[in-house]
Amino acid sequence: MEFSEYFPIWNQLKPWQQETVSAKVTFRTVKKGAMLHSGTDCTGLLLIKAGQLRAFILSKEGREVTIYRLFDRDLCLFSASCVLRSIQFDITVTAEKDTELWIIPADVYKQLMEQSAAVSNYTNEIMASRFSEVMWLMEQIMWNSMDKRVASFLLEEAAIEGADLLHITHESIANHLGTHREVVTRMLRYFQSEGMVRLSRGAVELTDRTKLELLSEV
Amino acid sequence: MEFSEYFPIWNQLKPWQQETVSAKVTFRTVKKGAMLHSGTDCTGLLLIKAGQLRAFILSKEGREVTIYRLFDRDLCLFSASCVLRSIQFDITVTAEKDTELWIIPADVYKQLMEQSAAVSNYTNEIMASRFSEVMWLMEQIMWNSMDKRVASFLLEEAAIEGADLLHITHESIANHLGTHREVVTRMLRYFQSEGMVRLSRGAVELTDRTKLELLSEV
Repeated sequence: MEFSEYFPIWNQLKPWQQETVSAKVTFRTVKKGAMLHSGTDCTGLLLIKAGQLRAFILSKEGREVTIYRLFDRDLCLFSASCVLRSIQFDITVTAEKDTELWIIPADVYKQLMEQSAAVSNYTNEIMASRFSEVMWLMEQIMWNSMDKRVASFLLEEAAIEGADLLHITHESIANHLGTHREVVTRMLRYFQSEGMVRLSRGAVELTDRTKLELLSEV
Repeated sequence: MEFSEYFPIWNQLKPWQQETVSAKVTFRTVKKGAMLHSGTDCTGLLLIKAGQLRAFILSKEGREVTIYRLFDRDLCLFSASCVLRSIQFDITVTAEKDTELWIIPADVYKQLMEQSAAVSNYTNEIMASRFSEVMWLMEQIMWNSMDKRVASFLLEEAAIEGADLLHITHESIANHLGTHREVVTRMLRYFQSEGMVRLSRGAVELTDRTKLELLSEV
């Protein structure tokens, strides 16, 4: 499978634009845990062939909160924040699974955007979509209690993995949600006492989805 | 002063595009407190000639949090969320001061974006700029304590008003910050005891900016 089959608006590029992009993209394979982007680097846009990435923000004290995840065929824009001068925040991107991806250099993409309304409008849609995820997250943080957020997170993970047994640590859940490990551990023990999950070393098993869903609903 | 002098990329529109937009925009004058947009309505883009608007999100329980403000020459994009199908959140926009503005119908703007890379890229920059404000806000909510947030808010208000005496209620501050009035009142009383503000009915006066600035710094 080629880059052209993964780049969503390939057919809207002119032949010479297709040539330029093809000549400039690089293909990479990274292992689970690899850091792909951090801070103000202008790494370029990441187009995922297969795998899973996580974008998060980091506090000065090292606390994390996941702002979105990227799956097959997703394009990561904010790893190339130099493309848009109004982007004034830094994200970190790491691989949550072994991942194959293409990197589109920021200057190449920026030129495409300037030349082509189609590329620019597509970029608008990506940004609007990430913006919506962040607004959802902010609403969760503002108005929802941590029990609902942990329940939602477990259900989301189970949906991503297609399994009820999640190999994930309390520390890692805390990093996704921007809270402390102790808070997550306390919540999971409460869930276990209510029969919603079963805890074991390095794993959480969902044992009552219906109850978790009821809890996660706002 | 005409619309053409306020619309930032007027000169990048083709003459027939300029004609279409001119024919379709409407000019409005609204009083302080007026609601300009709410929920999923596709009100159109708001271009501010003079005044001040506030965009906020609303919880089911009626709690508010300000996500950004708009001043002279600013363009409000999310009051026309139907322009971009990936926008999946609702904001409310009200006038914080008497405001004169133009409304650009969503379908007119959408057509411009599709035709013109300049308009689309400009839209990208606006969205990136709002996105950055929301990310800043989220970082504040996640990592910063309420004392810092109240101090920052008072300093920002003083900058907007160009005055140290702010005619604002505790309720209104709470609505900006997404918290409860009691929390704000407690914090302001503490600030007063530290000599940073002086409280009176319906007003907060900043009496020690340096101390507030020290407090607000992360």
